[in-house]
Amino acid sequence: MSDNSILQTAANEARGLAIDAISARASGHLGLPLGCAEIGAVLFGEILKFNPKNPSWLDRDRFVLSAGHGSMFIYAWLHICGYDLSLEDIKNFRIRGSKTPGHPEYGVTPGVEATAGPLGQGVGNAVGMAISEKMAESRFNSDADKIFDHKVWCLAGDGCMQEGISQEAISLAGTLKLDNLILMYDSNDVTLDAMAAKTMSEDTGARFKACGWRVLKCDGHDIDAVRKTLKSARRSADGKPTLVIFKTTIAKGIPEVENSAKGHGEGGAKFADSARKALGLPDEKFFVSPQTREFFAARAKKLARLNKKWDKLFAAWKASNPGKADDLEACLTRRGTESAEAAAALVPEFPASDAATRASGGAVMNFLAKKLPFMVTGSADLFGSTKNYLKDMGDFSADTPSGRNIWFGIREHAMGAISNGIAYDGIFLPSCATFLTFAGYMMGSIRIAALSRLPVQYIFTHDSIGVGMDGPTHQPVELVSQLRSMPRLDVIRPADAEECAAAWAMALSRKDGPTALILSRQNLPAIASLSASEKRSGTLRGAYVIRQEKSELNKIIIASGSEVSVALKAAEEESGTRVVSMPCMEVFERQSHEYRQSVLPDYCQNRIAIEAGVGGLWYKYAKKIVSTDDFGFSADSPELFKAFNITPEALRD
Amino acid sequence: MSDNSILQTAANEARGLAIDAISARASGHLGLPLGCAEIGAVLFGEILKFNPKNPSWLDRDRFVLSAGHGSMFIYAWLHICGYDLSLEDIKNFRIRGSKTPGHPEYGVTPGVEATAGPLGQGVGNAVGMAISEKMAESRFNSDADKIFDHKVWCLAGDGCMQEGISQEAISLAGTLKLDNLILMYDSNDVTLDAMAAKTMSEDTGARFKACGWRVLKCDGHDIDAVRKTLKSARRSADGKPTLVIFKTTIAKGIPEVENSAKGHGEGGAKFADSARKALGLPDEKFFVSPQTREFFAARAKKLARLNKKWDKLFAAWKASNPGKADDLEACLTRRGTESAEAAAALVPEFPASDAATRASGGAVMNFLAKKLPFMVTGSADLFGSTKNYLKDMGDFSADTPSGRNIWFGIREHAMGAISNGIAYDGIFLPSCATFLTFAGYMMGSIRIAALSRLPVQYIFTHDSIGVGMDGPTHQPVELVSQLRSMPRLDVIRPADAEECAAAWAMALSRKDGPTALILSRQNLPAIASLSASEKRSGTLRGAYVIRQEKSELNKIIIASGSEVSVALKAAEEESGTRVVSMPCMEVFERQSHEYRQSVLPDYCQNRIAIEAGVGGLWYKYAKKIVSTDDFGFSADSPELFKAFNITPEALRD
Repeated sequence: MSDNSILQTAANEARGLAIDAISARASGHLGLPLGCAEIGAVLFGEILKFNPKNPSWLDRDRFVLSAGHGSMFIYAWLHICGYDLSLEDIKNFRIRGSKTPGHPEYGVTPGVEATAGPLGQGVGNAVGMAISEKMAESRFNSDADKIFDHKVWCLAGDGCMQEGISQEAISLAGTLKLDNLILMYDSNDVTLDAMAAKTMSEDTGARFKACGWRVLKCDGHDIDAVRKTLKSARRSADGKPTLVIFKTTIAKGIPEVENSAKGHGEGGAKFADSARKALGLPDEKFFVSPQTREFFAARAKKLARLNKKWDKLFAAWKASNPGKADDLEACLTRRGTESAEAAAALVPEFPASDAATRASGGAVMNFLAKKLPFMVTGSADLFGSTKNYLKDMGDFSADTPSGRNIWFGIREHAMGAISNGIAYDGIFLPSCATFLTFAGYMMGSIRIAALSRLPVQYIFTHDSIGVGMDGPTHQPVELVSQLRSMPRLDVIRPADAEECAAAWAMALSRKDGPTALILSRQNLPAIASLSASEKRSGTLRGAYVIRQEKSELNKIIIASGSEVSVALKAAEEESGTRVVSMPCMEVFERQSHEYRQSVLPDYCQNRIAIEAGVGGLWYKYAKKIVSTDDFGFSADSPELFKAFNITPEALRD
Repeated sequence: MSDNSILQTAANEARGLAIDAISARASGHLGLPLGCAEIGAVLFGEILKFNPKNPSWLDRDRFVLSAGHGSMFIYAWLHICGYDLSLEDIKNFRIRGSKTPGHPEYGVTPGVEATAGPLGQGVGNAVGMAISEKMAESRFNSDADKIFDHKVWCLAGDGCMQEGISQEAISLAGTLKLDNLILMYDSNDVTLDAMAAKTMSEDTGARFKACGWRVLKCDGHDIDAVRKTLKSARRSADGKPTLVIFKTTIAKGIPEVENSAKGHGEGGAKFADSARKALGLPDEKFFVSPQTREFFAARAKKLARLNKKWDKLFAAWKASNPGKADDLEACLTRRGTESAEAAAALVPEFPASDAATRASGGAVMNFLAKKLPFMVTGSADLFGSTKNYLKDMGDFSADTPSGRNIWFGIREHAMGAISNGIAYDGIFLPSCATFLTFAGYMMGSIRIAALSRLPVQYIFTHDSIGVGMDGPTHQPVELVSQLRSMPRLDVIRPADAEECAAAWAMALSRKDGPTALILSRQNLPAIASLSASEKRSGTLRGAYVIRQEKSELNKIIIASGSEVSVALKAAEEESGTRVVSMPCMEVFERQSHEYRQSVLPDYCQNRIAIEAGVGGLWYKYAKKIVSTDDFGFSADSPELFKAFNITPEALRD
C-alpha cells in the first residue's frame, strides 16, 4: 500500500476515534478533528519531529492546538503515534481524572504542549515557543553542534484569527522575524454560530503578508498537497514566519452536518453509524487498523533513532562546550532558586531610603538576573516606567536573539500568552510588565498561566490611586482584588525594597504557578521597624508582625504595599496596637495554623485592614476596612490618599 | 489673512496651550497635541459638524480621541471652538475637580464623547458609534428627511494599532461596511519606550485594505493636504470605512525632543520657552489670538445655523412621521424603564419549571425587547448558547442596518468597546453576551463602562463549574468575584426565571452604570418557597429572605444563582434556619440600614455562604464559606458540585 493510502486510512480512523469518543459522551467538538484529519495524518505521520517515548526531548518540534475545542484531534493523533495515551484513555474522553479532558490541558496529557480552549491563546503560546527556541539556538548552539534546531507548529481556526490576541502576536512575530514558526490555519469558513462570512470578510493571507509573513495555501484534504506544502513550510528560513491556509470542510465525513455550523460541536454524533460506514470503518468502535499501527510504529522507531542521534550530538556538544552546558543545566534546573531563601540570599541588602517599589523591583531583578541565566523579561512598551529592563543583557531581536529583554509593543494580551509559551518551553523563565491598570487587558492569558501552573512573573507597576494625575483610567483600584480572586496565582504587594527582594525570591522559586508583583509608582518611605533580614523572612511567610505591640495586644492593623507605612504611623501613638504587613494573602494561607495564629491570634478580633484599592477581600481578616471602593480622579497622589481616607487618622480609634 | 495662515496660527496656539498646561503640571503628554496640531486645526476648523453651544445635538459628528493620553489635544480644540471649557479650565489641567482630567472622561467635559486612555478602546467605541448611526439612519430617517446624517471620526496612534482590541474592531467594521467611519492614524513612528519600528514592522495600510477598508495617506502637517484628504474621507460612501494615515512628527514644535520617544510625555516641557518663541507665541501663557478667536467664533455661528436648520428638519420629520418620532422619543427617554418595578411589570409571570437561567434570560429579553425599542443585543459567536437572540428582530448588517442582533464574531474585547460606543451614542441601549469564562478577555472594556457609568448589560452565561465536561478552561470560578470587585458595576446572579425577570428590569432601569447578568448553562430547579412577585420584589432589593425560619432564628444561609436551591434543600430539616437569596451584593448595599438588618440581623452571626466559585468576598456577610476556590475539571456537572462540596450536606450543622 502506498503511504498516501495508509495515511488516508489513518485519517479516517482518527475521524472514527473522534466520532466514537464524542458520541459516547454526547459532548465535544467534531468539526476540527474531522476537518483536519488529513492534515493530522501528514503532520504526525511524516512531518513533525518528536519521540512519543520521550515527550520532553529538548529538540522536539512543538505542536500547539490553538483551537482547543478540537481536542479529539490531538488525542487521536497522540494515541496513534504511540504516546502514553491508551485506547482506554480515549474512551474516557471528558471523564473525571482521565488524560483526555474536554480541552487540552498542559501537564495532564503527554504530548500536549499547551492548555487551550480560550481562542487565540495558542497562537501567542507558539510565538513564545518560537522566541524561546531562537534564544536557545543563539545562547547554546555551537558552530559545530546545533543542539537546538526545531520548529514550532500551531493549528488555529477562524475563531483564533478573529481574536485580537492573535493579531497582536502575529504582528510581533513578523517584526521579530520568527521563521521557525508555522501557523496552520484551518480555514473552514464556519464558526460556532454561523458561516464565518457573517462576521469575517477579510483577506487573511493579505493581512498576514502585511505583517511580514510568508503565506502558503493548500487544499487540506489532498494528502499530496498537504505534504508538499508542509515540507515547504518547514524549509522556510527566509526571516519570515509562515502561514499555511488550509481550505477544509468542517466535520468532513458526516455529510448531514459537514460544511455548516452544525458541524462544529457534537451535533453530528447522531449520524455516527452511517458516517462510520461511509468512512470504511468496521462496526468495532475506537478502531485503529493493524496497518495504521504498523506504519506509526515504524515511524516511532525512526523518530527514536533520531532522538538517539541527537543524544550523541548533545553529549559531544556538552563535552566541547562545558560553559554553555553548565549554563543550560542551570536553566533547566532553575539553579539558585531551589528555595525562596536561597534566591533571596542572591540579593544584597538595600540601604534604607525612600524608593518606589517599581524601582526597587528593577534593582532586585538586575541583581538576580546576573546570577540566574534563565531569567528573561519584557515590557509592553513601558520599560522606562515599569523599570524591569535587564541592563547590559541585550534586546531580543532577529539580529540579537540572545537578548534577554523582549519588547512586546503595546500588546498586553499577547504578551501574557507569549510569556506562557516561553514558560511552557521550560528553558527560560519569563516575566513581563505593564501598568497594573492594564492587567485587565491580559486577564485571559493570566488565567491560563494559573490553570496550567506556569511559573510566570507579572510585574504590575503603578499600583493604586497613588498613580496620581494620570487619573482614574490609569489608577487601578479593582485589579489587586481581581488578581487575588484568581486561583493558583500568588499576588505579592511589597512595602519596600527588602520586601521586594523577598517577593522576587518567592516568585522565582515558585514551581507550581504564576506570581503577580504589585509595585508602586510613587516613592514609599523606608520602613525601619524591623531589620532587612526580618522583613525578608517575614515576607516569605506571606504576612508577619512588622511592628510588635508595646503593651497588651488590643488592636491589629493589617496592610500591604504603600499602606504599611500609613499603618505604622497610625500605630505610633497606640501602645497596644500591632501592625501586620501582609504582602501575600495566598502564601500566608499556606502557613501552619500555629504561624497564622502567631500573627493574627483569634483572641484579638479588633482588627482593621487598609488598602488603597477595593477592600472586600480583607473581611476574611478584619471587621473594619479602610479602602478605596470607587474609581479615583486626576490629582496629586497625596491628595488622592487624603480624599479616600487612606491616612493614619482613619486607622486610629 | 488666508484660512491656511489662520489655521496654522491656531495650530501653533493649540500647541502653546498644550505646552503651557503640561508645563504647569509637569505632567501630561506633549507628543500628540503637538504632532496633530494641524490635523486638529483643519478638523475642528473646517470639517467636523458640531455645535459648541449644543454638545448633545443628535446629528453632530462624533469625534473620539482613542489615544487618550493626548488629552490636551482635545481640550485645546474644544476650548478654541467655544465649548463650555474656559481658559481657566485649561489652566486647571489634571487638577482635582477640573473639567480637564489627565485623560478624557465621558461626562466630565462637554464635547468629550468617550473616556480614553487604555489604548485601542476608542477605536472600538467609534465602531460602536458608527453602528449606532447606521441603525438610527435606517430606523428613523424618512425618504424625505434624513435626520441622522453624520460621520464618526476617531484619532488613534501607533499604540492603538498594536492593541488587539483595535484589530478586532477593524475587522468587524470592514465586514459591516461602516462607511460612515473615518479612522485617523497619527503615524509618528514613535511609542513611549522607543521608535515604533522596534516593535512594529507591518504595512498598516495593507493590513486595513485586507480588512475591507479604504486607505488614504497624507502629510499631517500640510494644511492643504490635510483639508483635501479629510474632505475626501468625508465623501466616502462606497461601503468601506476609511483609514487616513497621517505621517506626523511627534512633539513637533519642540526640536529637542520631536521625532523621538522623548517627545511622547512631558519631557519636552523644559524646553517650553524656546519652543514657544519659535512657534511665534508671545510671552503671555495660555494664549489664543483675537484672530483665532474670531475665526472660530464665525465658525461656531455657522455651525449654530446648521443646527438650527436641522432643528427645522427635525420638526418637519416629526410632524410627518409621528410613529417614528414616538419610537425615537421612547429610545431617548428609555420609556418603560423609568423604574425597575415598571420594567419588571412588562414581563409576564413564568410557569414554575426547571430551566437554565440563560434560557430564562433569553425569554425575559424577548418579552422586553418587544416593548422597548431601544434594546439591541449581540453575541461573540455564541447566540446559540448565550440565548440572547431577539427573535424576528433581524440581524444588523450593511443590508439590514435596522437589525437589533449584532454578530460580533469571536471578538470579546472589541464587543465590549463597541457596546460602550453604542451606549455613549445614547440612542440605543446595548447588551452583549459571551461565556462568563471569557469575561477576562473583555475586562478592559468593562472597566471603561464602569468608570464612565455606561448602562451596558453584559450577559455572561455558563457561570460556574456547572459548565461540566468542557472542563476548567470553560468553567469560570474566579470571574464572579472579579466582576464584583469592579466599582460601579452591578453583578446579578439570579436563581430562577422570576429572579431573571427582576434582574433584567434592574439592569435596564439602571442609568448610572453597567450590569453583569450571571446565568447558568445547566437547568436549575424552580423555586417554590415564595411567589413569583415576592421573588421579583426581593431581587430588586439585591437580597431577600427566600425562606423564612420556622422557629427562632439561629442560622442564616446566604446563596445566589444555582446555589439557592442547594441552600433551600439544606434548610429543609433545620427549623431555625433562614435562607437568603442574594443575587446582587451591590444593590443590597444600597438599601437602607433597616432593610439590610431585616434580612441579615446583626444578632444572628451564625451565617454560612455558599458559591460554586471563589468565595473570598462572602466574608463580609458570613464567617463560614462553602466555595470553589480552585479550578475545576472535566466531568458531569453534578459530579463537580459533589467534588467541590457544593451540596446541602456541606451547609448542615
